[in-house]
Amino acid sequence: MCGSLLSGGLEREELDSGPWYAGIEAGGSKWRVGVGRSPAVIADDTITTTNPDSTISACVEAIRGMGVPIDGAGIASFGPLDLNPTSHTYGFIKTTPKPGWSNTDVKGRIERELGIPAAIEIDVGGAALGEAWWGAGRGLDSFVYVTVGTGIGAALLRSGRTSHEHGHPEMGHISVERETEDAFAGVCPFHRSCLEGMAAGPAIRARWGVPSTELNDRAEVWDLEARYLAQGLATYAYTLVPQRIIVGGGIMQQPGLLELVRKRLAERINGYGPAPPDVESFVVPPELGQDAGLIGAIALALDRFETTTVRPP
Amino acid sequence: MCGSLLSGGLEREELDSGPWYAGIEAGGSKWRVGVGRSPAVIADDTITTTNPDSTISACVEAIRGMGVPIDGAGIASFGPLDLNPTSHTYGFIKTTPKPGWSNTDVKGRIERELGIPAAIEIDVGGAALGEAWWGAGRGLDSFVYVTVGTGIGAALLRSGRTSHEHGHPEMGHISVERETEDAFAGVCPFHRSCLEGMAAGPAIRARWGVPSTELNDRAEVWDLEARYLAQGLATYAYTLVPQRIIVGGGIMQQPGLLELVRKRLAERINGYGPAPPDVESFVVPPELGQDAGLIGAIALALDRFETTTVRPP
Repeated sequence: MCGSLLSGGLEREELDSGPWYAGIEAGGSKWRVGVGRSPAVIADDTITTTNPDSTISACVEAIRGMGVPIDGAGIASFGPLDLNPTSHTYGFIKTTPKPGWSNTDVKGRIERELGIPAAIEIDVGGAALGEAWWGAGRGLDSFVYVTVGTGIGAALLRSGRTSHEHGHPEMGHISVERETEDAFAGVCPFHRSCLEGMAAGPAIRARWGVPSTELNDRAEVWDLEARYLAQGLATYAYTLVPQRIIVGGGIMQQPGLLELVRKRLAERINGYGPAPPDVESFVVPPELGQDAGLIGAIALALDRFETTTVRPP
Repeated sequence: MCGSLLSGGLEREELDSGPWYAGIEAGGSKWRVGVGRSPAVIADDTITTTNPDSTISACVEAIRGMGVPIDGAGIASFGPLDLNPTSHTYGFIKTTPKPGWSNTDVKGRIERELGIPAAIEIDVGGAALGEAWWGAGRGLDSFVYVTVGTGIGAALLRSGRTSHEHGHPEMGHISVERETEDAFAGVCPFHRSCLEGMAAGPAIRARWGVPSTELNDRAEVWDLEARYLAQGLATYAYTLVPQRIIVGGGIMQQPGLLELVRKRLAERINGYGPAPPDVESFVVPPELGQDAGLIGAIALALDRFETTTVRPP
């Protein structure tokens, strides 16, 4: 655990310019915590994820150590989460293969230990909120945020909100048609050859025998990847009818992949249905980069607890 | 065109128990029109679809001929429709292969000729509204209505409303994985092997060489069909997270098919994600049958224009 005050410490008048909110990006391998009220986070820290007790305590300690009075916290957490506000396990991590974390009351423990209200959202939903407030989703009524990395996740934002009273989406697990030349079986433990099973990082590694970072120069790898992702994006366009799809995540760092996805999506859609004809503005990269989760968690807190600031248009 | 007054004529006091609304189910082969304020339509008629002028005039004439004062009309129309209220072609049928119907102002013409306000919705959205008010969607916050027939269409209802400012969904055109034993190429003119291209009526006919009505006893036909439909339903569950999926349409009249779809859906979902474990209550048939479109159009009018009646819970 390494403490840091990015701004180099706050003056008294800066503290008075709040209210301030804590943002918590609760990931499977690390937690990022910070304080702010905009993308310019005034203090942040990173904690390695161990067991729930140690991790949550370290998170609370880090936030307290920032010495900033906070009015509320936003949590963007790995899942599956119970996000039904009427459930008695609202804000809990549900059954997960991650040892020790099943049935952890993340929201309740943060609230009790920090003595402030907390709002909770699934990780990709938090990142989408950040893009809605300060990134590529600004001013849109409806967009999908997709992340392609170790897994594939996506969130739909409508009028600046996610909505999952009845469970959060699992958009990585949709069907895709096997591409003609591809004999790879797929690696999803639940569905084998769903989108995530065919196109997330572990699928690329298993299909080609080496990690994606060693495949940068292999054009056939990325053309195949683009066709699977284009199938996924076409399905999101046809079911959710967003104004835009923001596509990020580690795999999308491959140079040229976004352009290939756009090209293959236009071919797949083939002029039919609600997707706009201008694929360059329909499919875009995120703007907040590596900080999207933390900044999204702060946006979540602002969205729920802030009464004095009007949302950015 | 054949006029009929199902109730055998209305007494004066019945007419006074309104307000009454017109419902118009505008289909590619026929239009059904009726008047009512509940599923018990008090008058209805059927018009063969020809060109826009003749069809809309016959529709208006039929409604006038019912002799009931009406406060508004609901239209559930074939598409594609422009359903963006801020568009200058709101309520128009957009470019369609149906001769003569491209760029037809269905909503505007009905309003002008009947002298009343009209609300318009895509056909499957209208049927979904009917199920929300008086059918299998009663009391639900969120459900998907799917129809499997000549095509495959679906609508998402949330809080009793569809929403498609940015275009209506084309949920039949999502990707599906080819089932192992199936070599059929698919018949969708835009995507060849999307769900509709593999599993709607014309796909069944093309794959097996005879219409689906002659295949009732062929178990392999319906098991394959159920697996494709289950893929579609799983994708709807993972992207839209509905509380229920209502599945109707001509193809679903095949005895035992709904049960097969449920079984294959449970296998496909494989315990993962937001779909409830009880597949019998998650996937259900519609309750309004052949009248769903007409009744849905009346529900649409009630929803938009009725101020005195509270929506059924």
